[in-house]
Amino acid sequence: MSKGLPKRSEDYSLWYNELVKKADLAENSPVRGCMVIKPYGYAIWEKMQQELDRMFKETGHSNAYFPLFIPKSYLSKEAAHVEGFAKECAVVTHYRLKNDENGGGIIVDPEAKLEEELIVRPTSETVIWSTYKNWIQSYRDLPLLINQWANVVRWEMRTRLFLRTAEFLWQEGHTAHATKTEAVEETVRMLNVYAEFAETFMALPVIKGVKTENERFAGAEDTYCIEALMQDGKALQAGTSHFLGQNFAKAFDVKFQSKEGALEYVWGTSWGVSTRLMGALIMAHSDDNGLVLPPNLAPNKVVIVPIYRSEEEKEKINEVTKEMISKLRKAGISVKYDDRDTHKPGWKFAEYELKGVPVRIAIGPKDLENGTVEVARRDTLEKSVIPLNEEFTATISQLLEDMQANIYKKAYDFRAGMITKVESYEEFKSVLDEKGGFVLAHWDGTSETEEKVKDETKATIRCIPLDGEEEVGKCMVTGKPSKQRVIFARAY
Amino acid sequence: MSKGLPKRSEDYSLWYNELVKKADLAENSPVRGCMVIKPYGYAIWEKMQQELDRMFKETGHSNAYFPLFIPKSYLSKEAAHVEGFAKECAVVTHYRLKNDENGGGIIVDPEAKLEEELIVRPTSETVIWSTYKNWIQSYRDLPLLINQWANVVRWEMRTRLFLRTAEFLWQEGHTAHATKTEAVEETVRMLNVYAEFAETFMALPVIKGVKTENERFAGAEDTYCIEALMQDGKALQAGTSHFLGQNFAKAFDVKFQSKEGALEYVWGTSWGVSTRLMGALIMAHSDDNGLVLPPNLAPNKVVIVPIYRSEEEKEKINEVTKEMISKLRKAGISVKYDDRDTHKPGWKFAEYELKGVPVRIAIGPKDLENGTVEVARRDTLEKSVIPLNEEFTATISQLLEDMQANIYKKAYDFRAGMITKVESYEEFKSVLDEKGGFVLAHWDGTSETEEKVKDETKATIRCIPLDGEEEVGKCMVTGKPSKQRVIFARAY
Ligand SMILES: [Zn+2]
Ligand SMILES: [Zn+2]
Repeated sequence: MSKGLPKRSEDYSLWYNELVKKADLAENSPVRGCMVIKPYGYAIWEKMQQELDRMFKETGHSNAYFPLFIPKSYLSKEAAHVEGFAKECAVVTHYRLKNDENGGGIIVDPEAKLEEELIVRPTSETVIWSTYKNWIQSYRDLPLLINQWANVVRWEMRTRLFLRTAEFLWQEGHTAHATKTEAVEETVRMLNVYAEFAETFMALPVIKGVKTENERFAGAEDTYCIEALMQDGKALQAGTSHFLGQNFAKAFDVKFQSKEGALEYVWGTSWGVSTRLMGALIMAHSDDNGLVLPPNLAPNKVVIVPIYRSEEEKEKINEVTKEMISKLRKAGISVKYDDRDTHKPGWKFAEYELKGVPVRIAIGPKDLENGTVEVARRDTLEKSVIPLNEEFTATISQLLEDMQANIYKKAYDFRAGMITKVESYEEFKSVLDEKGGFVLAHWDGTSETEEKVKDETKATIRCIPLDGEEEVGKCMVTGKPSKQRVIFARAY
Repeated sequence: MSKGLPKRSEDYSLWYNELVKKADLAENSPVRGCMVIKPYGYAIWEKMQQELDRMFKETGHSNAYFPLFIPKSYLSKEAAHVEGFAKECAVVTHYRLKNDENGGGIIVDPEAKLEEELIVRPTSETVIWSTYKNWIQSYRDLPLLINQWANVVRWEMRTRLFLRTAEFLWQEGHTAHATKTEAVEETVRMLNVYAEFAETFMALPVIKGVKTENERFAGAEDTYCIEALMQDGKALQAGTSHFLGQNFAKAFDVKFQSKEGALEYVWGTSWGVSTRLMGALIMAHSDDNGLVLPPNLAPNKVVIVPIYRSEEEKEKINEVTKEMISKLRKAGISVKYDDRDTHKPGWKFAEYELKGVPVRIAIGPKDLENGTVEVARRDTLEKSVIPLNEEFTATISQLLEDMQANIYKKAYDFRAGMITKVESYEEFKSVLDEKGGFVLAHWDGTSETEEKVKDETKATIRCIPLDGEEEVGKCMVTGKPSKQRVIFARAY
């Protein structure tokens, strides 16, 4: 059965869009630029949330909730921040509708105009730091380690499901510290949490680095990031962690009394990941048959499809599977049993392949005779017949672990083959066009050169890698001296 | 040490406001009508969310996410709905800010006016049913059982933390069914889930009932509700479940092909509870010393405060508590160990009393000698000395269960004494003024009488109780016939 998915090799972009829709992950809503996250897509996001939330709490953070709306004047308080975020945002100007007296239906009530417009939060630094002013007086109130799960809105003209939408879901951490050292440590700590999450749960190898000034968060002193590589050779920024210096503390006058009695500005960080991770997860691993989910993030790790011709056979199979399911669940493995009569087994096989369920177990009359089941793994599409014995649950458990590792290894090996060192701008351009991926090149450290490269090749500096070797060289564009290679790529 | 809380008996309303702030639950934000939910308040909300989410999933529902914005025209599609929700809402009219050329700072860009205004969702029926139209074709697509956790905005002029805020957090279930019977069953099922949650986790006895037409959700055929009683004798609606009939299906043209091949409109329900439950939880159980939390919703069920005069003593206590904490946690009991040197034990005792931690354990040098600890329970404020032996964890576990039951019983007994049957309008008014609570009275079933009572006494019909006995009588106001008593109260 054809799932009607385009092939990645023919039209990667169309393949992605169709996959997101056909696998029931998300769809465009009637509201321009806003998406509907469908139950299956949301279930994967919930798995991500659970793991991240646990990791945030283990590193000492608490959740809280701040207002959706930001007074217009707040945005302007941090000079760089307003430049970055004031442009494309949703503006609330009125607080009431009314019936048009002239029969024009429901209209905005001109008498209900707000004195000061409210911005739907594009990010919450301003409203949070205005609150922190009242929460922080003394060094005893620090560090303040807070995270928020929320929706945010950035008005985008060109949107793509999960990757760039006007409204998206995310978490935003906002912390306050007594010293610069602690704040930098926190910034790096959360970068490492993101990297660990990406690698362990998303099976996604990432490069940790620092953004150039051009690509920095508006209001940050330093933006750290993790960068991942998609199958089409384009990069995707999967998470950012910002060292804010004292910028927001100064903008909102947040000072604390130090142990020594001095009044000092607080040091800040912020860090976030969003439903964009869903796009990264989908694009990194999936194939022409549909979604490939790392078991650690799959809502159902196992699906069982019974194959029968009579009610009697069905009942016998039900008996056997009942015990199997109970054992798998006891071992912490989520299982779906699909015994619907409305769909044929072949249809179900294709459906679960499309939806990326890691392990599919089929059981028919022959299996009943032989005491076996057929196990198909989604990553390699390999099938094998396995005895339904004492070791069965352990076998499946091991298989899921192997798959998690295998999906990671595949992505790692792919990326390894897509990191290219180049020595000249000519070579740089030809690698970008013919191969793509991460290109390691020397750069003179100026915004001018960075922008020239971007204009001419559409490649941006993804980051200055944290674990990059020091290597003296010459900028591939200007020939000026460089201390370290940086990572260029075309990116989502 | 005084916590500076007003007494309930002197000013209940002020007591509530101060308690919410002093116990670090929430505070007003700089954005009019919007609150900041502080980490401790949010941790309690998270406990509520976890339990409710589990109950929703156990009854077959999946989570999804729909857009924050609703096109203005959508609101108008269901005639009753627009009357109820169009009035006080946040309206997005523009999508860009810009620098004023005349030096006026950041202003709304008049060129970025939306063709159609967007409403920040006050509730999501319209945008969800417009989506369901594409999801539902056949009886095989039904039932569709979806829930959303989200923020919503209703522009309120007079707000109170948790009880009535412009923005609040909630869950909204939206289900679609093939038959009226199934939809009504779902409506009642979710009402029962809410009642079970309120009674089992919030320790809050509730009355299940149906709203009168006046109080019905805008767009529903029937609104079911659970009503709780606060300590000041006022009622609080703690959750609602709406049978929507085919109203939204008709408004958004959502039809399905039945098993028999006919094309029919879908039947709908919606149901929700919000951060208002936090207000109910606080007001139902707390006392003049602060918050009283049922153990089942307490972020920390136990707090341990060491009492020492020297580092040596502290170390000895640390050793003993370490094992105690590990055993308690293994038994699933959340524990906080507060060994901060910055605060005295007396200060800590008052602080945890204020914050409603169910069990406080103090351990000092004498306890070390005797192998005991001092255990104080928050609900009754009783203290006892308990041996730190093999049974200790089981004792604490049992104590927490007893406290949960005791807090429920106290609220139940209080309510039992506050349900009054009256036979005349005079009696009705005097009970309302002198006692408050739920007043059971005969009513003629007309909106006119209901409104007259409301105008004259500020009491509304909370509900027609589901388990009310049939009892023929005469309306206390008009003397017209009545088949059943209904429940009146002044309410939040
Ligand atoms: Zn980077
Ligand atoms: Zn009611």
